[in-house]
Amino acid sequence: MKPIRKQDFPVDEIRRFIEPGPVVLVSSAWKGERNIMTMGWHTVMGFSPSLIGCYIWEANHSREMIRRSRECVINVPTVDLAEMVVGIGNVTGAEVDKFAHFGLTAEPAEKVGAPLIAECFACLECRVADTAMVRKYSLFVLEVVKAHAPRAPKYPRTIHYRGEGQFMVAGDGLNLRRRFRPEML
Amino acid sequence: MKPIRKQDFPVDEIRRFIEPGPVVLVSSAWKGERNIMTMGWHTVMGFSPSLIGCYIWEANHSREMIRRSRECVINVPTVDLAEMVVGIGNVTGAEVDKFAHFGLTAEPAEKVGAPLIAECFACLECRVADTAMVRKYSLFVLEVVKAHAPRAPKYPRTIHYRGEGQFMVAGDGLNLRRRFRPEML
Repeated sequence: MKPIRKQDFPVDEIRRFIEPGPVVLVSSAWKGERNIMTMGWHTVMGFSPSLIGCYIWEANHSREMIRRSRECVINVPTVDLAEMVVGIGNVTGAEVDKFAHFGLTAEPAEKVGAPLIAECFACLECRVADTAMVRKYSLFVLEVVKAHAPRAPKYPRTIHYRGEGQFMVAGDGLNLRRRFRPEML
Repeated sequence: MKPIRKQDFPVDEIRRFIEPGPVVLVSSAWKGERNIMTMGWHTVMGFSPSLIGCYIWEANHSREMIRRSRECVINVPTVDLAEMVVGIGNVTGAEVDKFAHFGLTAEPAEKVGAPLIAECFACLECRVADTAMVRKYSLFVLEVVKAHAPRAPKYPRTIHYRGEGQFMVAGDGLNLRRRFRPEML
């Protein structure tokens, strides 16, 4: 696994990475500790502000860290990291430093205290915007405040969870732009 | 496009169709009218009850129909329907009956008043469970009350939106079940 060099990416265009529905890694930091969790239950909720609704379970060690710090980074992994992603989702940060355990590189974020995972394709620095749905639904509304992605390729080959240990690997692109009304683009 | 024969499917297992993040078609009915909209901003929120959080924009003609009837069907299309899906998302139900316009077959649902789209792979009958987040975020919490899917194939070849008229077509499966702790499956 190698760190991926990234540049600034417009926060209002991050739907490209999130809307297709990949499994992501959410990193957080709180009181000298850092952690990573896997997350498959999320949805884009707006372009500007750039909002993502995220289900973060009470049983996740990261939940308290995110709730208290009110910050995290959503990191988008590619298929070559798939086994490691599963490993991250099957061990608890209460017992293990996942960066060290999995040989990942924590890079400082620009606007939040949570670290970027350098080996991931895109890193979206987030602040917690709204917790009104947390108690009842474990749903956090996050605002992307800074984004990083490489210039190329345009789209990462992501993995998508189907349940029961089965994933779907992102396939070919399909360009249907010509069939859109201009205002729908 | 042909209708797909389906059987009953357990409502608490529908993550298989939704979690990977495909574009879906949401059908609704209200006061003698029926409509279909495209939806890419959604997330699973629970197994039992089977909850899906769905962003349904104020500008969608379907939004009032769903809000008032408190029912809809989430229909999962496969890639062969891609151009039609784009067509549905680029015309308004205020002007056109989309079932007739696109030659789709409306079948009666079992538990809700909204119709099933027979040509889709899976059809999830939903009731609106919570509207607390609608005013601020256009986010509806839906509960799947009945599901229909064919016995085979196990997974549909879905399409996933990247923005700018570009889609990702679901690729190969990746089985990482052996790397999961039993309780995480």
